[in-house]
Amino acid sequence: MQRKELGIAVIGAGRIGTLRARLAAKHPSVGFLALSDLDPARARALAEQTGADFHSGDNLEVISRPEVTAVIVSTPEGEHAAPVCKALELGKPVLVEKPLALTLADAQIILAKLKETGGHLRVGYSRRFKECFLRAKEQMIHQRLGRVVGGLARVYNSRAQAFSILKRDPHATPVLDVLTYYVDLMCWFMEGNAPVEIVARGQHGIFREAGYSAHDVTWAIVTFADGAVVNFGVSYALPAKYPTLGQSDRVELLGTEGTMLIDDDHMDHVLYSDRGIPHAYVPDHHVNMAFLGSNTAGDWAVGDFWGPLGNETRSWLDHLVTGNPTVHTTPEQARINLETTIAIERAVATGKPVRLPLET
Amino acid sequence: MQRKELGIAVIGAGRIGTLRARLAAKHPSVGFLALSDLDPARARALAEQTGADFHSGDNLEVISRPEVTAVIVSTPEGEHAAPVCKALELGKPVLVEKPLALTLADAQIILAKLKETGGHLRVGYSRRFKECFLRAKEQMIHQRLGRVVGGLARVYNSRAQAFSILKRDPHATPVLDVLTYYVDLMCWFMEGNAPVEIVARGQHGIFREAGYSAHDVTWAIVTFADGAVVNFGVSYALPAKYPTLGQSDRVELLGTEGTMLIDDDHMDHVLYSDRGIPHAYVPDHHVNMAFLGSNTAGDWAVGDFWGPLGNETRSWLDHLVTGNPTVHTTPEQARINLETTIAIERAVATGKPVRLPLET
Amino acid sequence: MQRKELGIAVIGAGRIGTLRARLAAKHPSVGFLALSDLDPARARALAEQTGADFHSGDNLEVISRPEVTAVIVSTPEGEHAAPVCKALELGKPVLVEKPLALTLADAQIILAKLKETGGHLRVGYSRRFKECFLRAKEQMIHQRLGRVVGGLARVYNSRAQAFSILKRDPHATPVLDVLTYYVDLMCWFMEGNAPVEIVARGQHGIFREAGYSAHDVTWAIVTFADGAVVNFGVSYALPAKYPTLGQSDRVELLGTEGTMLIDDDHMDHVLYSDRGIPHAYVPDHHVNMAFLGSNTAGDWAVGDFWGPLGNETRSWLDHLVTGNPTVHTTPEQARINLETTIAIERAVATGKPVRLPLET
Amino acid sequence: MQRKELGIAVIGAGRIGTLRARLAAKHPSVGFLALSDLDPARARALAEQTGADFHSGDNLEVISRPEVTAVIVSTPEGEHAAPVCKALELGKPVLVEKPLALTLADAQIILAKLKETGGHLRVGYSRRFKECFLRAKEQMIHQRLGRVVGGLARVYNSRAQAFSILKRDPHATPVLDVLTYYVDLMCWFMEGNAPVEIVARGQHGIFREAGYSAHDVTWAIVTFADGAVVNFGVSYALPAKYPTLGQSDRVELLGTEGTMLIDDDHMDHVLYSDRGIPHAYVPDHHVNMAFLGSNTAGDWAVGDFWGPLGNETRSWLDHLVTGNPTVHTTPEQARINLETTIAIERAVATGKPVRLPLET
Repeated sequence: MQRKELGIAVIGAGRIGTLRARLAAKHPSVGFLALSDLDPARARALAEQTGADFHSGDNLEVISRPEVTAVIVSTPEGEHAAPVCKALELGKPVLVEKPLALTLADAQIILAKLKETGGHLRVGYSRRFKECFLRAKEQMIHQRLGRVVGGLARVYNSRAQAFSILKRDPHATPVLDVLTYYVDLMCWFMEGNAPVEIVARGQHGIFREAGYSAHDVTWAIVTFADGAVVNFGVSYALPAKYPTLGQSDRVELLGTEGTMLIDDDHMDHVLYSDRGIPHAYVPDHHVNMAFLGSNTAGDWAVGDFWGPLGNETRSWLDHLVTGNPTVHTTPEQARINLETTIAIERAVATGKPVRLPLET
Repeated sequence: MQRKELGIAVIGAGRIGTLRARLAAKHPSVGFLALSDLDPARARALAEQTGADFHSGDNLEVISRPEVTAVIVSTPEGEHAAPVCKALELGKPVLVEKPLALTLADAQIILAKLKETGGHLRVGYSRRFKECFLRAKEQMIHQRLGRVVGGLARVYNSRAQAFSILKRDPHATPVLDVLTYYVDLMCWFMEGNAPVEIVARGQHGIFREAGYSAHDVTWAIVTFADGAVVNFGVSYALPAKYPTLGQSDRVELLGTEGTMLIDDDHMDHVLYSDRGIPHAYVPDHHVNMAFLGSNTAGDWAVGDFWGPLGNETRSWLDHLVTGNPTVHTTPEQARINLETTIAIERAVATGKPVRLPLET
Repeated sequence: MQRKELGIAVIGAGRIGTLRARLAAKHPSVGFLALSDLDPARARALAEQTGADFHSGDNLEVISRPEVTAVIVSTPEGEHAAPVCKALELGKPVLVEKPLALTLADAQIILAKLKETGGHLRVGYSRRFKECFLRAKEQMIHQRLGRVVGGLARVYNSRAQAFSILKRDPHATPVLDVLTYYVDLMCWFMEGNAPVEIVARGQHGIFREAGYSAHDVTWAIVTFADGAVVNFGVSYALPAKYPTLGQSDRVELLGTEGTMLIDDDHMDHVLYSDRGIPHAYVPDHHVNMAFLGSNTAGDWAVGDFWGPLGNETRSWLDHLVTGNPTVHTTPEQARINLETTIAIERAVATGKPVRLPLET
Repeated sequence: MQRKELGIAVIGAGRIGTLRARLAAKHPSVGFLALSDLDPARARALAEQTGADFHSGDNLEVISRPEVTAVIVSTPEGEHAAPVCKALELGKPVLVEKPLALTLADAQIILAKLKETGGHLRVGYSRRFKECFLRAKEQMIHQRLGRVVGGLARVYNSRAQAFSILKRDPHATPVLDVLTYYVDLMCWFMEGNAPVEIVARGQHGIFREAGYSAHDVTWAIVTFADGAVVNFGVSYALPAKYPTLGQSDRVELLGTEGTMLIDDDHMDHVLYSDRGIPHAYVPDHHVNMAFLGSNTAGDWAVGDFWGPLGNETRSWLDHLVTGNPTVHTTPEQARINLETTIAIERAVATGKPVRLPLET
């Protein structure tokens, strides 16, 4: 059993970058932690919070530090390419947040660099690491459903969280930002069976009234190569104080020999408090009724972090030390996720079916 | 408060006709019960079971009996027109099973007769009378959701029940036979807002293997006049011993000011029995695990019948006596349901969007 | 099929009496409706609302009306005896609200009168008539669980509803007023197997702070004659705006050959509305999140009433017309329910086991 | 950030010991792994499976190895004392499975040794490390419920698993073996508020018929120091093929300012497979319907282990490296758990209330 210490760089000190940094700081094999953010003050604050060894306002500088042996890229989605490519050039393994990029062109840049360097790159589709989805994948591996003929994956969230996202990025869309997780899950469950056609429709409501282009609700029917038809849906427009504190979803799979229904709406852990319950990611937002466990990334509780982003981060860091295989989304899988979600948006915009792969 | 006694004719002594007859026999205002079926022996047997006053192999004879003041038509779907029209001609109110007919042409025949006679006709979309959906409609009346932007209605059932249906009618399809209930519900919830466009996809599996044309799963996205997008889904291909004893469904509505989620999958009442639990409608079929309350029409329990078909029947019979208004599906609503489900099938078959109203 | 018209007297125009009167007014066989209340104005108002034929401030006068053929007694619980006995003396069938009385002595008075007159008396434990419990009883009749070894029945409700009850009757207790329903259910499910011993504990909290003697929570373990041990629990102290609009309960039965779990907490039908949802029985009380279907008696929806009290009332009125048997709680069953709940309270108060039957 | 490598000894290669060993082998900081079991062949087999560095039939030998820096004791419950005491004498931190011991006398031996050596000892009440319970504890820390007045914790499991346990240890009881987890949880949630009195009842059924003394169902009402009353229940007698693959439980807490309901029955992830689903711990036992996520310790999925025992083990190993605080059950807490469960059994056996602390 070979063991080695890790030097981790976290590039981007926003919400997810902060989580990655805090999780890396707690990992028993991390001996060196470096943080960067285009806002040096934010990097410094996070460094203080995590006891990091180095911080800077220069992403590439941090990636290049000799003590850094692996890199987590948590910049805004449109800025993944540069730091990812730099790390690959330096031969350092990379975990980048989802989606891989915002355009297929940027995704291609990253994939080309990966091919050129023969490096290690994984994409942070952390929902794979929710316990129910890990268990679901195991059942799929054992073919418990026979041949999958159809399925459903729909995800809801409150507009409080949506406006929080839109404030940071007015052009964010629930399809590219959130539904992509469920495309990733379904493609993973039906590994080897890729999406080939999409029809989709959307409806405007409160987001348009607030000046954004995002749809209130989008439904898409995705047909896979063997004919399986999966329905995807997303709405991030639920009332602000609806009790979910993150993604409230259901995933259902129908097969010739079995059925699997996953209720991830989190009504299995309800808390009502007259004192109010704060929302982890929406400032000054309290609810009296909460579905605990709905916090998308996971929860800080009793001094540790529990949930998909924690499982994902730890699993990746463990892998760097032990070499044990993991199930993080590969770059090619991430490219399919991106292409599929772009196709869903195109299908909504045009009202026409869209075939995959997309004509460039 | 005027009260009068009813003379009821039930035309068709199949599964649903049997229920209607038994329910009519129990109703305190029914003073005369007449039954008919093309198979006179079946009519006789049901007459004995219910203590009916008259039975025959001639539908029109029974409808014409002078003691009969109202008619329930429970023939196979393709045979509704003749008995319905006869009853309307004789000025007798009619409750006919869903769907109104199997083709728009037959539906039109019935609607024309209705207009000509100025009669009373309602269509047995009994799912409206499930308590949760009655409560849901009340909330919609009070506009608790604001403007509906989208929704979901999906229904599953076991292949045991599907094969039971297909044996009786090999050309039955889950869309026309079952999904129609959910089209009815959604149109009722969004009264005044009609479907205008449909895209849909389906996948084959076990039914095709068994020699039927029905799809294992169908998804449809229906756009309504104000832009609301509702996703509908149906699969009647779940494993034979999956614990549902009837329709297992979910109905979700998303509005600008509210959200309503209805879990009608019946996992709220589970029974596991080593002794086995019989299926009400699939002969010689026992399960060890059952989701009670999933029996689509309702359940006989402690000597009475409880559930949507009971509520619907009683409500209609009460209406005939008291004149109190009810919420049974009107013929025009039923026509829209039929047209919409035909459009869904056409959308699946062609792979193209289908606009409503259908070009004749 | 003999049919006859009913003349119904409803004695007591409070919350439940109002429901009974409205339901009787809608029943197709009711030809005469008379109402009484010690407050004549309240009787008059209800008479106007229901179109009743007669109203009075004198209960016994109304019971004695010649048009009245059956009586529903909905007075406060401590006042059941006089009107019930009067009706029995006059040979008129009676449905009286639960509990039969507040003391065993008063219960005995009623039972003695019943024996003397050979009359018909049923007690309004309407929870039997909730669909899930009717279905559950049917399964028990078929012995699907084998021998019952144990079970659980716990019921929660918000303090908003509790304070509403306590305002009307400061000495009301959740055990005598509410848990009695679940004692009734369990005794019905295990018919022939009576409670023989009870241990119980309670805890004070917000009710005591508000000046009432009621416990916030009570747990009781009831041992039945064959050794089965059932746990009962009640708390009516949940936060005022907790989403339940009535009883939120679970009933579980464990047998040698089967298990039955009934989730009656109503999270299967959730409504979140920014517009607020009124509480049927707590004035000026709105919640944004509601578990629909939790309204204890049932709901008015689309012009009719749906739920246990509706099923129970209609079933009784139907029985009066048709003679069909029903499953309403018998007076002897009600006496056992009363004795058992009194014993639970005594077990809490003394901290000692209490054996049944109670020493007088 | 100081990091050091761990040398772990796992004492006992049974079901749980096997899990501990496999988890330790995967941990990035474990550089040396030694295993022992009174059956040397079992130790050898596990060593091969995990790539351990050393194995033996002599527990104390393994504990004494110089490379071993920390010890996990997973022997049968009645044999904890010797290995735990040896490790403490050698100054090595210990994680021992629950319960601490089977008798208070043995627990006292361990506690005395702990005091004498000033060592580190934690007890493996792994249910604390189920995500829902970690989140629940966090809410309790923030006092979201105000003062707790009452609660409920009940756990069910199938007799298949029970017989599997009884085969290994015919004197095992559901109270000492399983309900102890929920006593631990409740005492942890209400930290500082100890149990002071217990009443309890049990019923025999299938276990007695099979020759064991265990009850089919046990209910206990535990009163805490401040008067809070919590109901505990356990039944491990559910039908063999009931869909749970481990503990199926509910935990509910009622407070003056809030309510928390945790549904851990796992009906949120259902799988029906015609192919059958194996039970992780009952050999040759397949079910067609399973509630995934009900596996008590957790699940192996996609090459890693996910669930409470995994969280607990990793958290402890991380702590040994990083010094970060954790929430593992302390020896004194474990002693209270043991005393309370012994008291529950005594209360059932005697039919009398039992006060805590127990008279020795």
